[in-house]
Amino acid sequence: MKNAVLITIGDEILSGNTIDTNSNFIATELKNIGIKVSQIFTISDEIDTIKEAIQSAFEIGDLIITTGGLGPTRDDKTKKAIAEFFDDEIALDEATFNHLKTYMEKRGRLEILERNREQAFVPTKSKVFQNFFGTAPCMMMEQSGKLLFSLPGVPYEVKPLIKDQIIPYLQERFSLSYISTRIVSVVGIPESILADTIENWELSLPKNLTLSYLPIGTRVKLRITATGDNEEVLQQQLEDEIQKLLPLIKDNVIATSEDKIEKILAEILTERKLTISTAESCTGGELAKMITSVSGSSKYFLGGVVTYATEKKIDILKVKKETIDEFTVVSEQVASEMAEGCQKLFGTNISLSTTGVAGPGKGEDGKDVGTVFYSIRVNDETVTSKLYMPHLDRLDFMNFVSQKILQDLVSILVSR
Amino acid sequence: MKNAVLITIGDEILSGNTIDTNSNFIATELKNIGIKVSQIFTISDEIDTIKEAIQSAFEIGDLIITTGGLGPTRDDKTKKAIAEFFDDEIALDEATFNHLKTYMEKRGRLEILERNREQAFVPTKSKVFQNFFGTAPCMMMEQSGKLLFSLPGVPYEVKPLIKDQIIPYLQERFSLSYISTRIVSVVGIPESILADTIENWELSLPKNLTLSYLPIGTRVKLRITATGDNEEVLQQQLEDEIQKLLPLIKDNVIATSEDKIEKILAEILTERKLTISTAESCTGGELAKMITSVSGSSKYFLGGVVTYATEKKIDILKVKKETIDEFTVVSEQVASEMAEGCQKLFGTNISLSTTGVAGPGKGEDGKDVGTVFYSIRVNDETVTSKLYMPHLDRLDFMNFVSQKILQDLVSILVSR
Repeated sequence: MKNAVLITIGDEILSGNTIDTNSNFIATELKNIGIKVSQIFTISDEIDTIKEAIQSAFEIGDLIITTGGLGPTRDDKTKKAIAEFFDDEIALDEATFNHLKTYMEKRGRLEILERNREQAFVPTKSKVFQNFFGTAPCMMMEQSGKLLFSLPGVPYEVKPLIKDQIIPYLQERFSLSYISTRIVSVVGIPESILADTIENWELSLPKNLTLSYLPIGTRVKLRITATGDNEEVLQQQLEDEIQKLLPLIKDNVIATSEDKIEKILAEILTERKLTISTAESCTGGELAKMITSVSGSSKYFLGGVVTYATEKKIDILKVKKETIDEFTVVSEQVASEMAEGCQKLFGTNISLSTTGVAGPGKGEDGKDVGTVFYSIRVNDETVTSKLYMPHLDRLDFMNFVSQKILQDLVSILVSR
Repeated sequence: MKNAVLITIGDEILSGNTIDTNSNFIATELKNIGIKVSQIFTISDEIDTIKEAIQSAFEIGDLIITTGGLGPTRDDKTKKAIAEFFDDEIALDEATFNHLKTYMEKRGRLEILERNREQAFVPTKSKVFQNFFGTAPCMMMEQSGKLLFSLPGVPYEVKPLIKDQIIPYLQERFSLSYISTRIVSVVGIPESILADTIENWELSLPKNLTLSYLPIGTRVKLRITATGDNEEVLQQQLEDEIQKLLPLIKDNVIATSEDKIEKILAEILTERKLTISTAESCTGGELAKMITSVSGSSKYFLGGVVTYATEKKIDILKVKKETIDEFTVVSEQVASEMAEGCQKLFGTNISLSTTGVAGPGKGEDGKDVGTVFYSIRVNDETVTSKLYMPHLDRLDFMNFVSQKILQDLVSILVSR
């Protein structure tokens, strides 16, 4: 199996200003064609550091992909470092310059600045992959059969370069072994007890299969990875092992193929032709966003409301004022009435609601930060639960609660 | 200045299954006390690899923070690697075991499994920081004045360990130099032209100040970082340089302190006592979520709706059926009517709306993927704009559009 090393270049990641999402995307794409990322170096924009990282990376992997450090501004030094490392010169590449010119003209910028022209300069030994969504080209260098690809850092430029150009190039150039993965999603059992329960099964896995535990919220994802020459054989192997696993933890498994809870839900709702709507308070739109992040969600998601102000819960969702006065706005009763009102407003089979205090300030009625009540209404039955997560920051709280609600909904639907 | 190296351990990140958010958090926290992260190694869960990474990291930094690889399951090897690297033994730590027991009892799990008991085994030379939100303790090792902290990988366990225990420990133990940062947000000018415009200013910056360009959507963030002994002096220096910068690009600057657009907006809305609401289609809740991600947003955000189904735009937002029939649902006219209806529904000064096709499937009326119309309504004036971003995937699209709308709104409010 080929090994890749990723080098992420840029002080904006080391300083905590930007989260590196490119590595995640590239690793996933490479995995699909059987290339394993064995290490990621995240380094600063300095020529010597970049050269040292390339040196170390070539010792570990057959393939290096660098991102970042190719923009037109003063703090970008990747290109120089690459030329120096490969003992090469930088020169104007005619094809790249023409591509750049067309790119700029299409965007109505007729006058090409000196700084942009510099972007058409590449190491003379490089093979260029043109960038259709930005001005910095992707360059490939080669050394004793090992490859280095240098990409810009902007995620929406990286994605098409990887998907449309580099992956097909690698597929054609190498004959690669396959990797197949299946994810089994397990709920309602702590990781340590789960590990004990399936220990014998794990120890008897074939040598080319590996198991990882990925806890996410209150769910544990078991990832089983198989490596080999024949894709079909691998998939059969995975299916066989999952069939052996299921009897051990049957009641706790909510999915054996899709990975993300919103996609698991999408499959169930689409198959059963059910519709859903959301009424959010403390999750602030995150729940709707999570559901609509799935392509095709317009088939089952009819809509949602975020009723942040208390009176909007009354106006729009028809929560009774007396209920709020008696139990406060963060209560089981209000969550339940929100779900009912939401179901009526959107005319859906299922409705979800949240009311709570995301913090860090206390809620208007003095309820503790981290408290949330949520309701899941399916047809004419409502189930309301409480969560208390005081240690999560605001965004993590919104995300955790939304994950948990979708997970509970899936559990309810699966058990029917 | 002290240098830190982060080591992220875990196949789930290398395989693309999980995005590493811990590094970002830790880097930001360290920066605040004047410690610079000079490199991040992301490596797999293998004892030799972990030991090699620690070796390399100690050559670069004064301080190592590892995350991951401390759970109770079979694929976690960090603790063994650390003991071997520091030539130490692992033994049961009484205090840690008692902490663990209390932790489990509080959660109603009276019987402690062997696997959990193992978590109270730590290298004998380590100083333990107890984990109040999980079962794996944080361990610190020392070698010739250099420190290694080993943390679990779960983000909501990492955050309190870093913030409440490790940061205060480092502050007390070292006398550190300060780092101050300011971000200037610039819109409406391409990065290359901006760079030319401010080149002379940049070249004349004092030696202890550095400048970085961070493009985010159609905004460029200029980050100016100052390092020195006296925090007040640094802040004055930054303020002085920003005052020199502003006349050069005055019309393009939307903020000089807050970094995130939703926080810039929060400041303006709070100061001017304005309220806001949202009516979303293709952004699916992301816009509301972005606004509510700011603590205190309940003061100005009254609520939002996600009207995914066309008839809900009519029912809830009072978009005219004739408008949809004449112009289709993805149109300037519908965006504008959505904003108007939203403003009425929530009774806010400002309302925002989106209607478009996030893809990858075509919209119901055949509009191209990546097309979106959005309206910004302030009092009785509506501005509607169109974006066409066919190259973004679904989630990036939702995020980019939401960013752009908030940015446009800030520009409108700032220019008033």
